[in-house]
Amino acid sequence: MTRKIIFFVYPEFELLDLSGPCSAFNLVNELYGGHYEFSVVSATGGAILDRAGLSIATEKLGKVGDYDTVVAVGGPTAHVYGLNALTKAFFAESALRGMRVVSVCNGAFLLAAAGLLDGRRATTHWRYAGLLQSHYPKVLVDIDRIFIKQGNIWTAAGLTAGIDLALMLIEDDFGSSVAKCVAKDWWFTTAVWAVNRNFRPSWTSRQLPVG
Amino acid sequence: MTRKIIFFVYPEFELLDLSGPCSAFNLVNELYGGHYEFSVVSATGGAILDRAGLSIATEKLGKVGDYDTVVAVGGPTAHVYGLNALTKAFFAESALRGMRVVSVCNGAFLLAAAGLLDGRRATTHWRYAGLLQSHYPKVLVDIDRIFIKQGNIWTAAGLTAGIDLALMLIEDDFGSSVAKCVAKDWWFTTAVWAVNRNFRPSWTSRQLPVG
Repeated sequence: MTRKIIFFVYPEFELLDLSGPCSAFNLVNELYGGHYEFSVVSATGGAILDRAGLSIATEKLGKVGDYDTVVAVGGPTAHVYGLNALTKAFFAESALRGMRVVSVCNGAFLLAAAGLLDGRRATTHWRYAGLLQSHYPKVLVDIDRIFIKQGNIWTAAGLTAGIDLALMLIEDDFGSSVAKCVAKDWWFTTAVWAVNRNFRPSWTSRQLPVG
Repeated sequence: MTRKIIFFVYPEFELLDLSGPCSAFNLVNELYGGHYEFSVVSATGGAILDRAGLSIATEKLGKVGDYDTVVAVGGPTAHVYGLNALTKAFFAESALRGMRVVSVCNGAFLLAAAGLLDGRRATTHWRYAGLLQSHYPKVLVDIDRIFIKQGNIWTAAGLTAGIDLALMLIEDDFGSSVAKCVAKDWWFTTAVWAVNRNFRPSWTSRQLPVG
C-alpha cells in the first residue's frame, strides 16, 4: 500500500515538524514493508528557507487529491502567514474529499485559517494556544492533549508531538504492531534527560493522549 | 556569544539528526538571547537528497576552524560512506584544534573513519553498535548511554538522542538553566505515547545518561 504524504511549508517553517514525522514514516518503509512517498510543497515552489536559514527544495502546490495526507508544519511565522486563496481552497477541499489533513505545532493556524477547525477540538503548541483561541474563537482549543483526531482532521501539540502524531498515522495505516516497532527504534530520551536533571516535564501534569 | 555549528551531510542522510539539534539551538536564539549560526556542508557542496528524497542545499566543506562545533549526522548509508581524504582531515584537524566534534546516531561511523574514536568510549544507534565495534575494534562502544562526552568528542545514540546531545551543548554554552528552558518548550511525548500503549521503551532498562 502506497501512501503519499505532502508537507506544506512556507518561509521560516520549523524543519523538525517535517523531519520528525518523515523519519518515522521512513522507518516503516525501510524496515516494515511500507511505501510512504513524500513531497514538500509551498505556495510558490522553489527553495524555501526554514527558521534556521537552511534551504529546502519545494514543489509548487499541485492539484487536490494527488496524495493521502497533507501536513501543515509549524514555525514562528505560522500564526501570521497569510494563506492565499488557492492554498485555503487546497486545504479545505482536501478535508472535504476525506484526505487526512494534519497540523503539527502551530501549523494549526493554517488549518484554522482555512476554516477547518471551526467547531472542532484542536491542539497546538502550548505557547500559541491563547493566540489560536483569540484569533479563531470557534475553535475548541485543548492544550491538554498531545494530538487530537476529529474525523480526518488531526492536530498535534508542539514540535516532537509531530512524531507522536506520525506514530498514530502509521497505526492508522499499518496497525499498532508496526507503530510500536517504529517507536522502539527511537531513543525516547528527552524524558530521560529531564529526569536525570530533576526536571519535571510539562506532560507529567497532563492527561495522556486520546485520539 | 556567537556559536557557529556546522552539520556535515551526505546522500541519504537522516534529516532529523540535523533538524532536531538545530531546532533546540534555534529556541536559544529566539527566546534566550543566544547566537547560534548554522551551515550545512557536504564533501561536494550543492543539493543533497536525504533518505526520504528531500533536497537540502549545502555548502562545500570549507576550511578548518571557521566554526565552534561540527556535527556528523547519521543515516542508512553512514556506515558505508567513504570519507575522502579532505573530509577525514577536516574532522581530525577540527578535533585536534579543540573544536567540539559531535556525531548523532550512526554518524559515529564518520568520526570512527577519521580515527577520532580509537581508544575512546562512544555510543551510536543500538542497531549499529555491533557493526561499529567490528569495523573499528579500538573504539570502546557503549550503547547503554544516550550520549558520551570524551574531551571535545561527543557521540549520541539514535535519532532523538541528538536532541538530548544538543541540550548538553546548550548547557555547555549557556548553562543549565537555559537548557532546561529549552527542554520545557518541547513536548516529551514519545515516552507518553509509549506509556499510553503499555509499551516499554528501551531506555527504561538502561542507565541514565552520563557526560
